[in-house]
Amino acid sequence: MVRAMTATHALHTDLYQLTMLAAYFHHGEAHRKATCELFVRRLPKNRRFLVVAGLERALRYLEQLRFTDEQIDVLHQIPGLKKAMSPAFVEYLRGFRFGGDVWAMPEGTIAFENEPLVRIEADLGEAQLVETFLLSCINHQTMIASKAARIVLALKGRTALEFGTRRTHFEAAVDVARSAWIAGFEATSNVAAFDAFGIPARGTMAHMFIMAAESERSAFLKYSKIFPRSTYLVDTYDTIEGVKAALETIGDDVSSVRLDSGDLASLTRQTRALLKERKREDVKIVVSSDLDEYEIERLITEGDFDVAGVGTRLATSDDAPSLGGVYKLTQIDGRPVAKFAEAKITYPGSHQVFRHQRDGHAHFDSLGLTKEPSYEFLGTEALLVEAMSGGRPTPAFAWGGAETLATMRARCRDGIAHLPAELKIVGARTDAHEKHYEVRPSAALLKLLDQVRADHTA
Amino acid sequence: MVRAMTATHALHTDLYQLTMLAAYFHHGEAHRKATCELFVRRLPKNRRFLVVAGLERALRYLEQLRFTDEQIDVLHQIPGLKKAMSPAFVEYLRGFRFGGDVWAMPEGTIAFENEPLVRIEADLGEAQLVETFLLSCINHQTMIASKAARIVLALKGRTALEFGTRRTHFEAAVDVARSAWIAGFEATSNVAAFDAFGIPARGTMAHMFIMAAESERSAFLKYSKIFPRSTYLVDTYDTIEGVKAALETIGDDVSSVRLDSGDLASLTRQTRALLKERKREDVKIVVSSDLDEYEIERLITEGDFDVAGVGTRLATSDDAPSLGGVYKLTQIDGRPVAKFAEAKITYPGSHQVFRHQRDGHAHFDSLGLTKEPSYEFLGTEALLVEAMSGGRPTPAFAWGGAETLATMRARCRDGIAHLPAELKIVGARTDAHEKHYEVRPSAALLKLLDQVRADHTA
Repeated sequence: MVRAMTATHALHTDLYQLTMLAAYFHHGEAHRKATCELFVRRLPKNRRFLVVAGLERALRYLEQLRFTDEQIDVLHQIPGLKKAMSPAFVEYLRGFRFGGDVWAMPEGTIAFENEPLVRIEADLGEAQLVETFLLSCINHQTMIASKAARIVLALKGRTALEFGTRRTHFEAAVDVARSAWIAGFEATSNVAAFDAFGIPARGTMAHMFIMAAESERSAFLKYSKIFPRSTYLVDTYDTIEGVKAALETIGDDVSSVRLDSGDLASLTRQTRALLKERKREDVKIVVSSDLDEYEIERLITEGDFDVAGVGTRLATSDDAPSLGGVYKLTQIDGRPVAKFAEAKITYPGSHQVFRHQRDGHAHFDSLGLTKEPSYEFLGTEALLVEAMSGGRPTPAFAWGGAETLATMRARCRDGIAHLPAELKIVGARTDAHEKHYEVRPSAALLKLLDQVRADHTA
Repeated sequence: MVRAMTATHALHTDLYQLTMLAAYFHHGEAHRKATCELFVRRLPKNRRFLVVAGLERALRYLEQLRFTDEQIDVLHQIPGLKKAMSPAFVEYLRGFRFGGDVWAMPEGTIAFENEPLVRIEADLGEAQLVETFLLSCINHQTMIASKAARIVLALKGRTALEFGTRRTHFEAAVDVARSAWIAGFEATSNVAAFDAFGIPARGTMAHMFIMAAESERSAFLKYSKIFPRSTYLVDTYDTIEGVKAALETIGDDVSSVRLDSGDLASLTRQTRALLKERKREDVKIVVSSDLDEYEIERLITEGDFDVAGVGTRLATSDDAPSLGGVYKLTQIDGRPVAKFAEAKITYPGSHQVFRHQRDGHAHFDSLGLTKEPSYEFLGTEALLVEAMSGGRPTPAFAWGGAETLATMRARCRDGIAHLPAELKIVGARTDAHEKHYEVRPSAALLKLLDQVRADHTA
């Protein structure tokens, strides 16, 4: 679970959320009733599904959101805002709390385009202010979990370790480790992620340790005195000589060897042959160095390894480095609304997603209205669940509730297991010839869309 | 300046830094003298230069680094580490401080491949532990500043605003705003970045504000009552009608209009024509929506605008989403060392970078040894300066010192102004045919490399 945040993150937002809030307030509109939904219009490049993540941090933010006196002082100093900082608005900010309801896909859920991942039903001012932080959490963690799931699929049962801290912001790295674990990674090198979330922490030695010693063998020996059953890094000077050095110096205690450079396909095969020759089939081969799902698939075919340490390309979701989640007003005071700008249409109303199964696999999803009769969705699973009510987390999402990381991880594993085979392909996606998973708007939703469009045009 | 961190970030590291630290300690080697350098082996895709950023946060980390009792308790719980947590090592951790020297390129400096951006001279244990955090700060912020500089170049004097918070981790977003400002962006939407660093904060309204109102005109009017001189978002329903609505409803107080969707090239030209027809040449045209330097160059040619709001593709450095900065041991107890693994060679020794000018432009850089006679570098600028001495920041880098964000920004502007024209091209880089900026190892360095290699082979 996320540790209690010691400070409120009220200023982690875009300035326009505050100017709009001020405008709503001054016109007496801050307490109108709004529904907003967070969704992804199009799956990113090469993604065939998303793994939802980031909700817990978003919920903690909503729960703890308030403006301290010091933060209000900061707002007074912003040229574009200060003229709106009337005593009445300041008073409103001082009392500001998020008191709305949240429906969301729990973390680890498999999701697709145009499906609300989070639905907020709250006072207009509250629904507006929280947009930026919610998008930031859900976009970042869902992007990472979705990438991590592909890497896990590519590994076909081999072990994935998360090593990306040095290639992303140091706080982002903690959430990277969390998202990767939800998606099936075994452990992380990030100690802060162990501290914050209990993600298993793993790691052994770097080239520096070898280079600081008189020789590679001396380095191995020194390390083994403190950590006998370890992974020995063998590629500092000559990889195969390094493997021999580890086996000869450490003997039975060599648990695995790590190769971090060179032609990994060839070197891992040579290493495996050497291990066999020395009757050390128990020693695992760990590979690292700019790995991703594509490189892993190649190394499985052309090389031979047991464990992959994945860093840079996971922590940045290298082939699709952003997730374009958006957050849109879909209903105001009970009136469904939509945006009709080119290529950026939104669905009006308040929505639920229903997953239809066939032959034990996800078959298609329906995007329906929360208020429509549900008989046509009989036997389906409704994916959005109530996560907050009146500003308080529901029992499953409260501290110590059922939504543990282990639950999320199991949900992800289960969701992926039930995907049709064509969605579990890891190779690059060719949009032209590939069948997408279908997200079907319900008849009632399509009818509402037409009505809203007609009303707008009229 | 970075606010004082309230907690030490000692756990924001890779576990192996701690296991190696434990091994050094138990062998009595934690106090050996090490030199480590942080550098980038190859410029990322499409980058012709780097803009260094992230140093300030790295220095504050080093200055404040210590292990609290609570953090030491966490270390006791890590299976892979706990056996090394002897009373003596725990005592060492309790007293752990960074007491080394730091030489670095100040933020805003233009840098190239294989040049040390940071050099650490410290006890081996200290130099080891800090690797991950330093890499995280410098890699992330340098990546963003380098991308931002390209966007600023593409804009040819037009204004750049940073809007990326929603598409990256919420804490990373604050450093994105900072890095972008150093590289020449005018302002950010991120309020926390205004709070932490004083980056000017800008922003106006979102589609939600328009959709929540009875009509677009009503929304504009309401907003103008609170913020008269504003940017009006005109593309919620029909862009050109939106421009008319703003002009007709708000009149003289329309400061600018923002277009966030559709065919921006055509729509900005139509908007400019309309503004001219209505004799409102004073109204600025702001564009946003997945912009980057390539799209901006296209829109300058095919469209017509004054201000660009850049988010996603800046905050993720979309076309090159990681910077592969590495941190390598180059000297131990006065003995130069190197790594000879394929394609990952490092230079032994302790280095300085000298920039040679010709005709008022950067001509090439020399990578020399700090100890070699400097006559061959007469008239050049030495790029690494002393930022910490004995664990304390030098005056320029201390709180309230000369290294303000404005200094960094001016340094970047000046550095870019003195680049040769071919490095200021923004288009995609074609490695095959393009002349790279030369980083020339000095004769003394090449000689040392040969010696170290010979000693290693012997």
